Amino acid sequence: MLWPDTISKKLGVQYPIIQAPMFGVSTVQMVAAAARADCLGSLALADLSAEESIGLIRETRKLTDKPFVANIFVHHIPEITEALKEKFIKTRQFLEQLAKENDIEVSFPDLEDLKVTPYHELVDVIIEENCKILSFTFGNLDDQSIQKLKENGVTLIGTCTSVCEALMLEKSGIDIICVQGTEAGGHRGTFDPDNVPQIGGLSLLSQVYDHVKVPLIYAGGIYNGKMVKAVKDLGAQGFQVGNLLLASQESALQPFEKERLKKVREDEIMLTKSFSGRYARGVKNKYIEAVEGSEYILPYPYQNKLTNALRKAAKSKQNTDFVGIWTGQSIHQYSELSTEEILKNLIFQI
Amino acid sequence: MLWPDTISKKLGVQYPIIQAPMFGVSTVQMVAAAARADCLGSLALADLSAEESIGLIRETRKLTDKPFVANIFVHHIPEITEALKEKFIKTRQFLEQLAKENDIEVSFPDLEDLKVTPYHELVDVIIEENCKILSFTFGNLDDQSIQKLKENGVTLIGTCTSVCEALMLEKSGIDIICVQGTEAGGHRGTFDPDNVPQIGGLSLLSQVYDHVKVPLIYAGGIYNGKMVKAVKDLGAQGFQVGNLLLASQESALQPFEKERLKKVREDEIMLTKSFSGRYARGVKNKYIEAVEGSEYILPYPYQNKLTNALRKAAKSKQNTDFVGIWTGQSIHQYSELSTEEILKNLIFQI
Repeated sequence: MLWPDTISKKLGVQYPIIQAPMFGVSTVQMVAAAARADCLGSLALADLSAEESIGLIRETRKLTDKPFVANIFVHHIPEITEALKEKFIKTRQFLEQLAKENDIEVSFPDLEDLKVTPYHELVDVIIEENCKILSFTFGNLDDQSIQKLKENGVTLIGTCTSVCEALMLEKSGIDIICVQGTEAGGHRGTFDPDNVPQIGGLSLLSQVYDHVKVPLIYAGGIYNGKMVKAVKDLGAQGFQVGNLLLASQESALQPFEKERLKKVREDEIMLTKSFSGRYARGVKNKYIEAVEGSEYILPYPYQNKLTNALRKAAKSKQNTDFVGIWTGQSIHQYSELSTEEILKNLIFQI
Repeated sequence: MLWPDTISKKLGVQYPIIQAPMFGVSTVQMVAAAARADCLGSLALADLSAEESIGLIRETRKLTDKPFVANIFVHHIPEITEALKEKFIKTRQFLEQLAKENDIEVSFPDLEDLKVTPYHELVDVIIEENCKILSFTFGNLDDQSIQKLKENGVTLIGTCTSVCEALMLEKSGIDIICVQGTEAGGHRGTFDPDNVPQIGGLSLLSQVYDHVKVPLIYAGGIYNGKMVKAVKDLGAQGFQVGNLLLASQESALQPFEKERLKKVREDEIMLTKSFSGRYARGVKNKYIEAVEGSEYILPYPYQNKLTNALRKAAKSKQNTDFVGIWTGQSIHQYSELSTEEILKNLIFQI
């Protein structure tokens, strides 16, 4: 296959294969390993604090001098109203009871204790730390941030899950669009948390390609060389893989989580907003069954911050029923090789 | 592109492009037009009576002497229990009220008046009428029917929406599997009406290809030659198109329905079981908003038969708010040319 070289030049890599940013799963080691395979690693910063983000960027730089993507969430942070305070207390009570019934010892935080990071702080970090590629999900950057980032030579990659979102990204001057098919695992990149398009990659990529002119990366379901070629034929110039790397040596998943993934059935994969308040694709479990569709789901990022303690406690007990295990719709493709070997094997198939 | 010839020989056509069976939209004229383009037409019989099915088969034969597919639903018909009778009355009352509020004059049937056709009757029709290709959805044929059909030289095409369903079809000796990506419009072919996988075509086709040995047809989202090539690269030997033909000259849709489709937004497309009791992808409207997720949905085929009168009445008033307008996730690809021209144009792109 002839690799698309416009995007490779823009991103400064030999192969336009991108290790997906998977917050909680990908690691600085994974980013560096992707770079060793001459691919592009993504450092998932999500909505960490500026300080934590700086720490991770510098750690990555110690491991590689090649380019990598920094990935952040650009969500709107809902105001703390009386109604939200009330809902927070009710949700916490429900989760306390749920944890108790399931023998999980956990101390949930107060709403006042939650630290939320406006994404603007991370935009400043990206510039100050001289990062050269920024990808983002959950919305679009504001015009001022876009201008500031561009003035500092940062290449911008936005995420779309619909043609409408792609058009908005292009209109505001985003350089590259990552088209996220419904096949993808983890959080949907959708702008509006309550209306999540579930458009399959074939329809979505083809239609976005027909509507915008900027280069496209495709994400969602890719697990072999044939799929890379197919989505290239449909117009993608970059190819993002996540699931392939879930069980890799550099993955932050623990052995019990990798074991759960190996045994997962296709009918256990679902979209849920129960963990974070935003829809994400993962493995159905007791927690999701108890919370999904209930009134105990706060808007992102509050639900995410609140349930964090529960997930941590469950993880330390190796309890798959109360951790969020994310996966896309291409299952059982998990290899325990290193990220470098997995990506080199993929390139070899192409 | 080199056309896959194993499946073309099996199906007796030059191009393994299949006009999707779209009950209520496709027509005998569409089937014949597909044949004129050297493609394979599908005659949608759904769960019509044996008599009506025989009529349509004979009508088709008057228009073409080329092969075509007969397509039937192989659902289980729920027994009429006291609980079902009660639910029927409540649902009918709800729909009567809804129709009245919206100035639609309609006389709904009694449960006793509904005529349901066990699919075995249509299996006998297929054999007696000497049809050579049978495709089916909503489940798998029983072993006895499969044996009978095979003894009579009928080629069988089952529909899957998951790897699990594909394995079941292959195990029971079905000749060809139609892989229906979540992109597809109209009814999901899923076996279990309550648990509908929504697996994107890229993940589904690739995984089914890795798991079964029988030839595959791909259905869902195809609207240009590039997509045909892409799904061929992923393992499909046949290519089913539906949306492309929705507004064709041979479509049974009325001008007001075609107009609605031309204006549809991607966020108006959804899965709903409100019309038939089985999930189908179509355009959100007032009826769906009133009924979806409510207690007024009977199991298929009862909901379908009950709402039929309402849909007919709405259609006669050109009221898009109460008709079911089905479409897949690749929108705005509707051409008003003839089916023959649309399919020839598609072949020309390949």
